[in-house]
Amino acid sequence: MTESQAGSSTSTALLTDHYELTMLQAALAAGTAGRRSVFELFPRRLPGGRRYGVVAGVGRALDAIEAFRFDQETLSALEGVVDDATLGWLADYRFSGDVWGYAEGDAYFPQSPLVIVESTFAEAVLLETVLLSVYNHDSAIASAASRMTLAAGERPCIEMGSRRTHEEAAVAAARAAYVAGFGSTSNLAARARYGVPSAGTSAHSFTLLHDTEEQAFRAQVSSLGKDTTLLVDTYDIAEAVRLGVEIAGPELGAVRIDSGDLGVLAVDVREQLDALGATDTHIIVTSDLDEYAIAALAASPVDGYGVGTQLVTGSGHPTCGFVYKLVAREGEDGTLVPVAKKSADKASVGGRKFALRRRNARGVAEAEVIGVGAAPTDDGDDRPLLVPLVRDGEIVGREPLADARRRHAKARAELPFTIQSMAKGDPAIPTIFV
Amino acid sequence: MTESQAGSSTSTALLTDHYELTMLQAALAAGTAGRRSVFELFPRRLPGGRRYGVVAGVGRALDAIEAFRFDQETLSALEGVVDDATLGWLADYRFSGDVWGYAEGDAYFPQSPLVIVESTFAEAVLLETVLLSVYNHDSAIASAASRMTLAAGERPCIEMGSRRTHEEAAVAAARAAYVAGFGSTSNLAARARYGVPSAGTSAHSFTLLHDTEEQAFRAQVSSLGKDTTLLVDTYDIAEAVRLGVEIAGPELGAVRIDSGDLGVLAVDVREQLDALGATDTHIIVTSDLDEYAIAALAASPVDGYGVGTQLVTGSGHPTCGFVYKLVAREGEDGTLVPVAKKSADKASVGGRKFALRRRNARGVAEAEVIGVGAAPTDDGDDRPLLVPLVRDGEIVGREPLADARRRHAKARAELPFTIQSMAKGDPAIPTIFV
Repeated sequence: MTESQAGSSTSTALLTDHYELTMLQAALAAGTAGRRSVFELFPRRLPGGRRYGVVAGVGRALDAIEAFRFDQETLSALEGVVDDATLGWLADYRFSGDVWGYAEGDAYFPQSPLVIVESTFAEAVLLETVLLSVYNHDSAIASAASRMTLAAGERPCIEMGSRRTHEEAAVAAARAAYVAGFGSTSNLAARARYGVPSAGTSAHSFTLLHDTEEQAFRAQVSSLGKDTTLLVDTYDIAEAVRLGVEIAGPELGAVRIDSGDLGVLAVDVREQLDALGATDTHIIVTSDLDEYAIAALAASPVDGYGVGTQLVTGSGHPTCGFVYKLVAREGEDGTLVPVAKKSADKASVGGRKFALRRRNARGVAEAEVIGVGAAPTDDGDDRPLLVPLVRDGEIVGREPLADARRRHAKARAELPFTIQSMAKGDPAIPTIFV
Repeated sequence: MTESQAGSSTSTALLTDHYELTMLQAALAAGTAGRRSVFELFPRRLPGGRRYGVVAGVGRALDAIEAFRFDQETLSALEGVVDDATLGWLADYRFSGDVWGYAEGDAYFPQSPLVIVESTFAEAVLLETVLLSVYNHDSAIASAASRMTLAAGERPCIEMGSRRTHEEAAVAAARAAYVAGFGSTSNLAARARYGVPSAGTSAHSFTLLHDTEEQAFRAQVSSLGKDTTLLVDTYDIAEAVRLGVEIAGPELGAVRIDSGDLGVLAVDVREQLDALGATDTHIIVTSDLDEYAIAALAASPVDGYGVGTQLVTGSGHPTCGFVYKLVAREGEDGTLVPVAKKSADKASVGGRKFALRRRNARGVAEAEVIGVGAAPTDDGDDRPLLVPLVRDGEIVGREPLADARRRHAKARAELPFTIQSMAKGDPAIPTIFV
């Protein structure tokens, strides 16, 4: 017997915790499954020391909601998990409620109500796990990526962390990094699925495959063009740089340095390239970069940063810790009743929220304003943060990924100057409950 | 325009870095793509302070190799990445070489040659990214999971981290945790695909949905049976425990505590349950547990641990840092030549390796013995670590997941007693190059 090949269905319905289904069964039996309910997806706090977070995964979450169907293969997999009555109910499942959320690329702060799902309990509870998975992962990556692109300034960041994370997480990471300002990715599936520009040239193995570094460089330049990026640290960097310019001429696109003291090496290589007349040849550095290393290299003659491990692992914070809580549900009289658990260290705020980003007269964010009920009328300085994503089960929040990327740049530019510091600190703006 | 829905193909060929393809193009053009090559996947070191690592993902990697095909959809996505000659070569791609590797569930140490891929350069280089993704992720989870199950002793660990990681990484994490001794998972896709036992009962939202905790508990017990697990910390724990036993009787399966000082609460709840006659009712604790918290609860009357965030994020080490390096390739005379880069801080050891776990007369591991060339004949105490996984392109290393789980228990039991300490330290055994 070998591992099962089951689960090749494109349904997302099994990317779910067992207890969502058993809760459904119990609620169906008790007659409470149809109660109108409001769930909220939110962070209790930012990762320690972070000034802001970045919302990502919205587009993927909408895809996941749409594909959340219980086809025959999926239902078969649930035999033994729930009873026949529940399986029958699931066969007809299709989310028919409403979802509002922060738009992709926007910033978030402690308690920001990132997603609000309103439907029956049964319909909404089932989405808990997959929504949390998508948002917790993608936003962790985007939050780290945004700090990196902020530190990099005008210099491009290239996402190349696929090999350090789960193969599908890698695709989502490339997408999230792009939202947060990365210019390109090494990941080909992200190119194919989401149109993220892909880039890449060669590894040490390519040099080692050939009898000499010269043969390797000639092979690469000949096939990929003079504007290729040569990896120059397999043997001796100065010799490789000399060889690269000899072979490709001053039109050589770039050299990549992947080891050693990058700041020192970049200076040496820049001097050498300039002396050889290759003044337009770029220097790309890679090798365990994070936002701190990028900031440290700001004064070095570096033209681009390739970031891998630290990007795809969220630079120390691989998950956001978002939770999905019932905040209101239909009471006995048919009206929505705010609800909240009272657990010692995990209390939540009941009620259906609104959220605004308060800005001062110069357009600089001052506070994350959250309240229960209807938002006060926009006075022009307060920017409403919740947009419709799903209406009566129909996805209405899809947008080109480039829009999320532009939104992120704008939302980040609106934040106070304190976010420029990579040092740990308080959230850039306070969260105010009104 | 909305995000593309492309990439729904079940091929794994795009879960790959751009540069694998451009290297292929250049090597094809240079006539070096067909050189026989040996790549090795290995860790330079263990994560700081860890005593051992656990190999996981082997079965998933074999699935990924088998599905690594360039169908028409995949080839279309590569237009603009590589030239037509390369696309033509890819259309016929099928890995036809050999792969050896550490068996799934075994332990590993610094420099352990976890996977050896031997084929042409072209065939082997293409597998780099996806193999690293699978091994880096799954082994990071299994390595953390193994420390948790070691700390938990005979008490079961339940994997419930799906919501804290990418939705597909979640499935792989549940699988890897099972290999490393977890008893069950909340993840339904892991149940469907890999046969991992799934478990789960209810969340705070279920209690809050109902008008009273009593209604919620009655609904749950009535539908899911007396042996269900009731979540008792939505309001007042003592009252919830009293209510649970009143409703389900002493046959109540378990209560779950998800907040507060778990060690203290477990003592109180155990006393209360015993006083109510519910001496067989278990206490399950959850809430940001890791191996340290589990170890700290060893003396508390806890019957099982639900672990989420820290499991799926590798308990501080979300990736293993495995690399995939060319270690030997065909020279001009047709023989295999060891190769290695000389980069300042990333030197590698050339040559095709063997690996043995040296054990003393009592069967306790003493060293990870690695050498180049053929392994010395097994003298009975040295356990060979590399097993055939793929032969002439045919997958030969598949096995039931339960075998990997049993292997892990055995391999861990063979390690020195020092692994029992959760404190940071050196690898449990030294790596010796012979």
